[in-house]
Amino acid sequence: MSKKKVVLAFSGGLDTSFCCIYLAKDLNLEVHSVVVNTGGFDEAELKQIEERALSLGVASHNVIDETTNYYNDSIKYLIFGNVLKNATYPLSVSAERVCQATAIANYAKKIGAECVAHGSTGAGNDQVRFDMIFEILVPNVEVITPIRDLKLSREAEIEYLHKHGVEVNAEKAKYSINKGLWGTSVGGKETLTSNQYLPEESWPTPISKSGTEQVTVDFVKGEPVALNGEAMTSVEVIQKLQDIAQPYGIGRDIHVGDTIIGIKGRVGFEAAGPIIIVKAHHTLEKHVLTKWQLSWKDQLGAFYGNFLHEGQFHDPVMRDIEAFLQSSQETVNGRVIVQLQPNYFTVIGIESENDLMSNKFGTYGEMNNSWTGDDVKGFSKIFGNQVSIWHKVNNK
Amino acid sequence: MSKKKVVLAFSGGLDTSFCCIYLAKDLNLEVHSVVVNTGGFDEAELKQIEERALSLGVASHNVIDETTNYYNDSIKYLIFGNVLKNATYPLSVSAERVCQATAIANYAKKIGAECVAHGSTGAGNDQVRFDMIFEILVPNVEVITPIRDLKLSREAEIEYLHKHGVEVNAEKAKYSINKGLWGTSVGGKETLTSNQYLPEESWPTPISKSGTEQVTVDFVKGEPVALNGEAMTSVEVIQKLQDIAQPYGIGRDIHVGDTIIGIKGRVGFEAAGPIIIVKAHHTLEKHVLTKWQLSWKDQLGAFYGNFLHEGQFHDPVMRDIEAFLQSSQETVNGRVIVQLQPNYFTVIGIESENDLMSNKFGTYGEMNNSWTGDDVKGFSKIFGNQVSIWHKVNNK
Amino acid sequence: MSKKKVVLAFSGGLDTSFCCIYLAKDLNLEVHSVVVNTGGFDEAELKQIEERALSLGVASHNVIDETTNYYNDSIKYLIFGNVLKNATYPLSVSAERVCQATAIANYAKKIGAECVAHGSTGAGNDQVRFDMIFEILVPNVEVITPIRDLKLSREAEIEYLHKHGVEVNAEKAKYSINKGLWGTSVGGKETLTSNQYLPEESWPTPISKSGTEQVTVDFVKGEPVALNGEAMTSVEVIQKLQDIAQPYGIGRDIHVGDTIIGIKGRVGFEAAGPIIIVKAHHTLEKHVLTKWQLSWKDQLGAFYGNFLHEGQFHDPVMRDIEAFLQSSQETVNGRVIVQLQPNYFTVIGIESENDLMSNKFGTYGEMNNSWTGDDVKGFSKIFGNQVSIWHKVNNK
Amino acid sequence: MSKKKVVLAFSGGLDTSFCCIYLAKDLNLEVHSVVVNTGGFDEAELKQIEERALSLGVASHNVIDETTNYYNDSIKYLIFGNVLKNATYPLSVSAERVCQATAIANYAKKIGAECVAHGSTGAGNDQVRFDMIFEILVPNVEVITPIRDLKLSREAEIEYLHKHGVEVNAEKAKYSINKGLWGTSVGGKETLTSNQYLPEESWPTPISKSGTEQVTVDFVKGEPVALNGEAMTSVEVIQKLQDIAQPYGIGRDIHVGDTIIGIKGRVGFEAAGPIIIVKAHHTLEKHVLTKWQLSWKDQLGAFYGNFLHEGQFHDPVMRDIEAFLQSSQETVNGRVIVQLQPNYFTVIGIESENDLMSNKFGTYGEMNNSWTGDDVKGFSKIFGNQVSIWHKVNNK
Repeated sequence: MSKKKVVLAFSGGLDTSFCCIYLAKDLNLEVHSVVVNTGGFDEAELKQIEERALSLGVASHNVIDETTNYYNDSIKYLIFGNVLKNATYPLSVSAERVCQATAIANYAKKIGAECVAHGSTGAGNDQVRFDMIFEILVPNVEVITPIRDLKLSREAEIEYLHKHGVEVNAEKAKYSINKGLWGTSVGGKETLTSNQYLPEESWPTPISKSGTEQVTVDFVKGEPVALNGEAMTSVEVIQKLQDIAQPYGIGRDIHVGDTIIGIKGRVGFEAAGPIIIVKAHHTLEKHVLTKWQLSWKDQLGAFYGNFLHEGQFHDPVMRDIEAFLQSSQETVNGRVIVQLQPNYFTVIGIESENDLMSNKFGTYGEMNNSWTGDDVKGFSKIFGNQVSIWHKVNNK
Repeated sequence: MSKKKVVLAFSGGLDTSFCCIYLAKDLNLEVHSVVVNTGGFDEAELKQIEERALSLGVASHNVIDETTNYYNDSIKYLIFGNVLKNATYPLSVSAERVCQATAIANYAKKIGAECVAHGSTGAGNDQVRFDMIFEILVPNVEVITPIRDLKLSREAEIEYLHKHGVEVNAEKAKYSINKGLWGTSVGGKETLTSNQYLPEESWPTPISKSGTEQVTVDFVKGEPVALNGEAMTSVEVIQKLQDIAQPYGIGRDIHVGDTIIGIKGRVGFEAAGPIIIVKAHHTLEKHVLTKWQLSWKDQLGAFYGNFLHEGQFHDPVMRDIEAFLQSSQETVNGRVIVQLQPNYFTVIGIESENDLMSNKFGTYGEMNNSWTGDDVKGFSKIFGNQVSIWHKVNNK
Repeated sequence: MSKKKVVLAFSGGLDTSFCCIYLAKDLNLEVHSVVVNTGGFDEAELKQIEERALSLGVASHNVIDETTNYYNDSIKYLIFGNVLKNATYPLSVSAERVCQATAIANYAKKIGAECVAHGSTGAGNDQVRFDMIFEILVPNVEVITPIRDLKLSREAEIEYLHKHGVEVNAEKAKYSINKGLWGTSVGGKETLTSNQYLPEESWPTPISKSGTEQVTVDFVKGEPVALNGEAMTSVEVIQKLQDIAQPYGIGRDIHVGDTIIGIKGRVGFEAAGPIIIVKAHHTLEKHVLTKWQLSWKDQLGAFYGNFLHEGQFHDPVMRDIEAFLQSSQETVNGRVIVQLQPNYFTVIGIESENDLMSNKFGTYGEMNNSWTGDDVKGFSKIFGNQVSIWHKVNNK
Repeated sequence: MSKKKVVLAFSGGLDTSFCCIYLAKDLNLEVHSVVVNTGGFDEAELKQIEERALSLGVASHNVIDETTNYYNDSIKYLIFGNVLKNATYPLSVSAERVCQATAIANYAKKIGAECVAHGSTGAGNDQVRFDMIFEILVPNVEVITPIRDLKLSREAEIEYLHKHGVEVNAEKAKYSINKGLWGTSVGGKETLTSNQYLPEESWPTPISKSGTEQVTVDFVKGEPVALNGEAMTSVEVIQKLQDIAQPYGIGRDIHVGDTIIGIKGRVGFEAAGPIIIVKAHHTLEKHVLTKWQLSWKDQLGAFYGNFLHEGQFHDPVMRDIEAFLQSSQETVNGRVIVQLQPNYFTVIGIESENDLMSNKFGTYGEMNNSWTGDDVKGFSKIFGNQVSIWHKVNNK
């Protein structure tokens, strides 16, 4: 009888290396390791991970490049919705996990795997995202979670691997880093407290630029389509802007928020590109959208971000919100000028043919010909009418 | 027959100086000028305004200090609600005008005035705020708006005053500045465009500090009660923090938003104190409030800010929202540590007895004893149950 | 010099008859009368109105049948959104006015009219809807409102017409009736009080049926497409269902609500067809949509209804909400069974291939194989985790 | 060594009778049975349940009457919020379970019990409510759920009881009925389908009244305080109105909704009293609250109802919403007149000193002296200003 196939979400780290051996030796499965790249790995890293996988004896190893899908399926809407969770965090990791789990589920279907495995522990958000998305997309495929189930110590995992002839670096990195198209998260030591900030050396990108620098981002229907006037794909705009701006130390912060499992979590991140794009996009929107478009986008964007964070990407309500957001971007066209400086950036202004602040129609604080003082007097009377009646009736 | 009394909202500037004479001479009214101080004027300025008023021949001149009421009636709730309009602006001017209009209405009632007058033009938000609040609070008092009605040029006003023996500085300030407890607005030249930023010289407070400096703000039930460990009133915390932080150039930005009259407006502001307090308060809340408290506070806070901006403070729904916000602050106690640097600040962390991130109950990313991997597995199954069914039914 | 053209929204009643003569004689305009039919007029009535217009000497008279556009542009989304204003009123008149004003604006553009006129008084919602939509769609066309401006009494209007050789029925109808595709409003006497209900004789459709009768409505992507199994257009479903159900006295009620101008208004209506369709559609949705689709639809539907009521149909946010609603209807397919009886109806149940209540996936209250008791135990633990921590931390 | 104490939520039915014996004999616990009355049991029923408990050999049996607490802690806010889940269901059972679980947790604390037990199966909402509330309020007490864990058939339970000398009625009731202060639920047979309605004989209260009958309900600060002019407690108003109205067959319907565990559930209910009170209260509010009070109450009320349904009563956000709702009831005073008839009721109207529809301030559809046509013209211009600019800019 042939072995059952398992697709393993593989990163090359200790936990998923352990899983490789454990799934093959202890569970007698045919292990197909997969790396889903969401923009965080370069060629060299992917090569290194592949070599690791092959050295662990996997039946096959594959890289699925989901960067463009990741942008089209999630990031685009996070931009449309100006999503910064708790007014801070661009959801760097959350959105990525959903994309990765979905890609793995589809790959498992494609190769007819009976099982999927992930290396999540029992303590974070990722386990819920993986579990749920597998349950939704491949309900008949068994989900195996060795790390969560066995609860082995780091030392026990190393010992187990050693026993099976695999040597791993026993030293634990001081900070856990996760890199993707939409930012890099940094966790460890200080983020486990409530009152300490990450030290300079913990940030993946050191501050190497000084002075000021202006950049422009062009948007068409809400999507970034050019950087400094040069047309490129949205993914490229994000990546190049990140390369330009991160060395200023822009977009670093610590996010404190609610995990799916109810505890509070704290994580550092650096995401100069994403944050500049979100803020630039939002500023453009303030010029071109109506008051109620802005208001509803705030609410729907916040919900979309939270629900994505919680791994609920496949609820059809997410498609409905995306339809709203897409519709709202019809007039979100123009150029945003941004100034970069060490540690912070300034949105200088925008230029757009859809700008509602055109002084053809009245300039704030200056009289004009579109309406009269009497119009406003009438407006004030009627606008305050109900509250005026309320005060008369209730004698206050 | 005695003259009718008019209460004039007086600032000492050209427009309200014109009103003084016009109301007295052309409309034959007994002019009672009033300055409502919301924390923006110091003694010397108030003295100067008084002298101006008396030189214009007013029947009486009064200063109403509303700073504490302003804090208690509005600012407190803007802090509770973490209100930054369009994710940017602490509503420096909007909230102030409502407070001023209310104080003037009450003063008119007190002295039995038949009229109130304000110097707003027909082009901004203030006219609506004044008109409406007078209509609501003193519906039988006539509202007179000479500047809006006469639409005189600056030169014509100067000429008129000159004819009546009043000399005024003919030079127009390059930027219009409005100072209050909750920030200082800066308008003019660049803010009338969409694509230019305010130059360094336009900011009222020059950048005079360098290096880094740590401060702490203590909150009790959501209100700031101590700065750097020293207990003081909330008004004092705001003012002293402003004095400490503004010389770093912190909290400067340009707000683009919807005016009450439907056009877009753009205004610069510097508000280091307010913005640091809002961000510090929000960070503390992320540690001590539940997910749904944070979510509803976002929605209600945004509405509260917008509605206050639109002058609708006296709608009873504002009292209802305040009741919600007050209730939500029960556990918002603790210290927030903030680091100041030129142009930006960092919230380092918080210390609170109400911190839900206590590692007694599980640390994000680390296993613990409060729940098992199987608990989360069951949770994931049920949490994703409906969407899983949806996909089965709809075959996707 | 040729006369200026004016397009007059004409209904054949006293007010718009007065306008016809007044615009021609006093203002020396070339009057083009237009009736916009939104499903409320039959052939005979339209003929009668035309004769009236011609007898008043209009330069041209036209009927614009907007029934289908009315359905496609508004009613469809009111169904998708299950919109009953204040949980009661299907917005019979509000949506209609917007449709009519839009059609008139477009007609004015088409014939190159310099003016449009409407017969609204200064006391209701319609004036705002007409004014605003004309301002938005034909900003350079002058809006003339003789009834509002002249404030003539009924008698004065009759006298004026008499003087110009036009005789009108001097007797005022006891109730003002307005009929359209989405229901008929009834105003007068009792609706001007807060504590009286409309008497039987005031309702346009007397109760003439007794016993019970079952009907079925089939929906495809949220739109009603068949009645009692017979395929027809959605407009026909609405009209035929109305004909079947209104003689039971179903769908009568009084709506109390906020007018655009701030006062409270009360109006009776009969709308059996619309209300049955909304309730049937909503019941179907409860079976086929996810919890969060239902929740967001509630909020967006309510806003859409209120904003339409306030005449803000042309705000682009309405297009964005429509995109959301349309997306949400993907799986709203199936048959709804409704039982009619004098004065009330019962939604018996639904049949749908998209029904999420399929017992293949677990029946409420019965054990099943999709999950175990332990899964729910784990779920409960994690689902209550944050609040449990909150109570531990805050010692309550 | 003394036995451990367990508090058992006891109803006298088969499942909890089984639990009594099982906890005592198989788990060797000292069983303290408790009935929490939320208004559904009369003296005779309570006596019968007590006898049953004693016959099963419990160590103690207690009745906790929570009817008044139930009203004060939940029902009151369901009235304030006009809560009908999915526009239909007054949450009869959901709110009750939360109240019962809370009372049992407190009782367990009081008598120092080491365990609590409930008889929920693994298929419904109740298990989650009980589990979570125990976890939150008595986290150190063990929760035992024999029915969910053992998954015995009805026959096996009867056999087990028989073996232990307890005889029970082997016949299963056709419908499962649950009665409380806020309505009675009815489940079985037809409610397990999507397309069938409950037959006449399934409803606990037969229709025994005909003709019409008027009643009045008086509200003070949103709470019902008198029926037909006679002052009584709110609990009494609910109960007496239920007694008067239920024999008309009013307030019967089927609710379809989302269970906490993700499946759809369908349940019948009869709740004449609750539904009349909610609709009467809502009508009164439409007269006395401002537009935005009504709007926010809709949103917060819906959330409150859903969250209560999901057992999340102890999240502090519920206290915050209650503070909002309480504040909003300040002016909700007056009398509501309701007409009862077989199968339906009509809200005739209201009388209130806080009625904003007072014709002193303008009557809908009639001209008045509070504002002029020009005021509305100005209002329309400004109210439509932004959308007008939008159309000019975007050339549509």
